[in-house]
Amino acid sequence: MTGTPPLKRTPLDSTALAAAPIPGSGADRDAERLARATISMVVEPGDLRCLGLTGRLGGVEFLDVLRRHPDLRPELAAASARLAEVEPERTLEQAERQGIRFVIPGDEEWPEQLEDLTEAGELQQRGEVPAGLWVKGPLRLDRLGRSVAIVGSRSATTYGDQLASDLAAVVAAAGHPVVSGAAFGIDYAAHRGAVGAGAATVAVLACGVDRAYPAAHRDMLRYLGENHAVVSEAPLGASPFRIRFLARNRVIAALTRGTVVVEAAVRSGALNTASWAERLNRVVMGTPGPLTSVASQGVNQLLRSGAATLVTGPDDVLELLGSAGENLTQELRAPEQERDRLSVPERQVLDAVPVLEPAPTASIAFVAGLGAPQVAHFLEGLEERGLVEARAGGWRLTERGRA
Amino acid sequence: MTGTPPLKRTPLDSTALAAAPIPGSGADRDAERLARATISMVVEPGDLRCLGLTGRLGGVEFLDVLRRHPDLRPELAAASARLAEVEPERTLEQAERQGIRFVIPGDEEWPEQLEDLTEAGELQQRGEVPAGLWVKGPLRLDRLGRSVAIVGSRSATTYGDQLASDLAAVVAAAGHPVVSGAAFGIDYAAHRGAVGAGAATVAVLACGVDRAYPAAHRDMLRYLGENHAVVSEAPLGASPFRIRFLARNRVIAALTRGTVVVEAAVRSGALNTASWAERLNRVVMGTPGPLTSVASQGVNQLLRSGAATLVTGPDDVLELLGSAGENLTQELRAPEQERDRLSVPERQVLDAVPVLEPAPTASIAFVAGLGAPQVAHFLEGLEERGLVEARAGGWRLTERGRA
Repeated sequence: MTGTPPLKRTPLDSTALAAAPIPGSGADRDAERLARATISMVVEPGDLRCLGLTGRLGGVEFLDVLRRHPDLRPELAAASARLAEVEPERTLEQAERQGIRFVIPGDEEWPEQLEDLTEAGELQQRGEVPAGLWVKGPLRLDRLGRSVAIVGSRSATTYGDQLASDLAAVVAAAGHPVVSGAAFGIDYAAHRGAVGAGAATVAVLACGVDRAYPAAHRDMLRYLGENHAVVSEAPLGASPFRIRFLARNRVIAALTRGTVVVEAAVRSGALNTASWAERLNRVVMGTPGPLTSVASQGVNQLLRSGAATLVTGPDDVLELLGSAGENLTQELRAPEQERDRLSVPERQVLDAVPVLEPAPTASIAFVAGLGAPQVAHFLEGLEERGLVEARAGGWRLTERGRA
Repeated sequence: MTGTPPLKRTPLDSTALAAAPIPGSGADRDAERLARATISMVVEPGDLRCLGLTGRLGGVEFLDVLRRHPDLRPELAAASARLAEVEPERTLEQAERQGIRFVIPGDEEWPEQLEDLTEAGELQQRGEVPAGLWVKGPLRLDRLGRSVAIVGSRSATTYGDQLASDLAAVVAAAGHPVVSGAAFGIDYAAHRGAVGAGAATVAVLACGVDRAYPAAHRDMLRYLGENHAVVSEAPLGASPFRIRFLARNRVIAALTRGTVVVEAAVRSGALNTASWAERLNRVVMGTPGPLTSVASQGVNQLLRSGAATLVTGPDDVLELLGSAGENLTQELRAPEQERDRLSVPERQVLDAVPVLEPAPTASIAFVAGLGAPQVAHFLEGLEERGLVEARAGGWRLTERGRA
C-alpha cells in the first residue's frame, strides 16, 4: 500500500501475498457474504489496513483473524472490539425486507472497476476496495462501466445547477449513467437532469442507504431507491461523518469512467473526488465558470493546473468518455453569415469596402487588387444583398455588411 | 513565403536571397525612410508579396522596382499605379507637424520582435513585416519587448470589461505594457485599466493614427496619443477596412510577448490575434467565462482545444509571461478555517463527530481510532472553539464545525 509502512513479517504475510480466492456459490458464498457484511459493520469505510487485508485474505479469513488475533496489529483492536455489538445475520435479513442487497466481489453484479482501488494509495488516510456495497434499487451495479460522475458544490449557483442538469440529461440519455452524491446543489441537479431525461442515475451516500441525508432530499432518495439505485459502503443505520464523505468520494470516482466537476469552491469535496479520479486514471473534466464567482474558483483552478480537461458541454464529455471515434465533438461554428455565401472575389471586394466613409469604385478596386469593371459588377451584387450601400463619394458597408 | 507560390526566376531573385542591408544614418537613412513611407502609402498593410520584397530588397531598392518594373508581377502593378497619387515628402512633413513619427527597421526605436513576421506564413492572405509603423505619442516602441496583448469582444459583458480592466491594471503596473486595439468592449477596458494604474498602454489601429475609429473613442485616442502611444501600419488618413483589421491583428500579436483573450464570441477578431500569437510562438492565454454566455463561447472553445492556456487572474498571466521563476503564482488557498488550526488528533476527533444525530464519546473514539479519555478531552476543547456541541445522546457538529 503506497503511503503506508510495509506490513510486518508475521505468519499472516505468506498467505497475504496471494489473491484471496472468491468462493463460487452455495454455502461458501453465503459465508463470505456474511463475513463481509460483518466487516462492513465493524470497519470504517475506506479503512486502509482492514480493507487491504480483507481483499488479500478474503472476508471469512480476515474475520477469523479479527476474532482470534485482535492484538496482531493495533488497527484491528477497535474493529475486533466492535464485533460483539453487531448482529450481521439479523441486519442482512432486515436489509432484505427493506429491498436492500449487499453486493460483494465475485457477485455477477459486482462492479469490477472498483478493484482499481486495490493498493491505489490513499487520500486523507482512506482507500482500498470496499468489503461490499449496500444497494437499494433496481439498477444493477455492473451496468455502471460507462457511468460518469457529476459532482460539485452544495452551494451551487443557478448557472451551475443548470449546467449540471443539462450535462446529466444528455450524457445519461446517451448511455452513460450518472453517479453523484445526494447533497444540495450540483448533486441534486445532476440526478434531476438524468431523471428528467428518463435515464439512469445513482446516488452514493456517506451514510446508510436506509437514512436520508440531507433530510430535505428524503423524497429524492426514496425515488432513486425505487427506480434507480442508492448505494453505500457504510452499513445500514450509519451516520454521515466527514471521513465517510471522503471514503465515499473514492467510491464515486472508482465506479465511473470519468468525473465532471461543475462548480466547486476552493475547499470542495468535489475536488477530492477529482483527485481520486486522477489517481485511478479516470477522465477528469471540469466546466469553467466566471473568474469572479467563488463557486467556480476551485474548478477554474483545477482547469488551470491541467489536472482536469475543460469541457464546454455534453458533447465534449461524450467525446472524452467515448472510445476513440465513438463520439466526436463537432467544432462549434458561428451561424452562417451572408459573407459565407459569397464567392472568393466577392468577398475580396466586400473586405475592401470602407466601414466608415464611402470610397469610390477605383479605390476599392485598388485595395481588393481586382480590375475596376469587375469590382463595379460585384459591388452591385453586394448592394442587392444589403451588404454595401452607395453614398456620396462612393460605397461603404451597411450595418449588415459590418457584421 | 509559406502558402504562396515561389517567386519566378527573374534577375531580381539573385539579390533577393540576401537580407537587405539597412543603411546606418545620414542621407541613406533618410532615403530609406522616405522610400518606406512611400511603400506604406501605396501598399496595403500585410501585403505578402510587396512587404516580403521590401524586407528582402530594402525600401529604396523595392521602390525602384515598383517605379521601373511595374509589369514584373501583377501584384506590383496596383501599387505602382498608385505612386503618382501620393506625396510622401509632404506627408512626412505633415506627420511631423502633428507629432507623428514613422519608425522603420534599423531605427533604435524599431521593435525587433516584429522581424518574427518575416515569412511567418499568412492568415487571410496577410503577413510579413510592416514597411514601417506610424506612431503618435511619447512611448517608444522598443519598450514593448515585455508587452502583453489584451484583446476580446467589442460586445463584451460587464464581467469581461471588469476582467480586462483588472488584468491590464495589474499586469501593466508589473512592467508589462498593454497592447490592444481601440474598439468598444475589451480593448477599451484594457486601456482604461492600464491608464488607471498609471502604467503604459498602446493602441494599434487599422486606420491612420490621425483618424478616430470608432468616433466615440476620439478622446481616448487623443489621450493615448499624448501620454502613451497610438500605432498603425496604415498611412495617415487611411480608412478602417476589414482586411486592415486582419493585418493589424498580426502586428498586435507580433509586438507582444503574449496575448490574453478575454471574452470572445465564436467569430471574433480576437481569435485571429490569438492564431497569430500561436503562429509566432507567443504565449496564448484565455480567461474562461460561463458556458452559457455567447460572449465567452469563442474563448472557452480556444481553451478547450488547448490552443490557449487558461488563466485565472493577473498572477497567472505574470507567471506565463515571466522568465522562469520570475513570477510564480501562489496556489489559491481557501481562507484559513478553524479546523486548519487544530492538531492532527483534534482534527481526527472532529472528523469523527456526526453531522446529524449526536453520538456518544465511545462511538466517536471508535471512529477516530483513539482512546475514549483522550477523545473526551479533545471534545471539550472543540466545544470551546464552537465546533461541536453536546446534545442528548452525545456530541454533534455545530454549523461552524460543518463548514
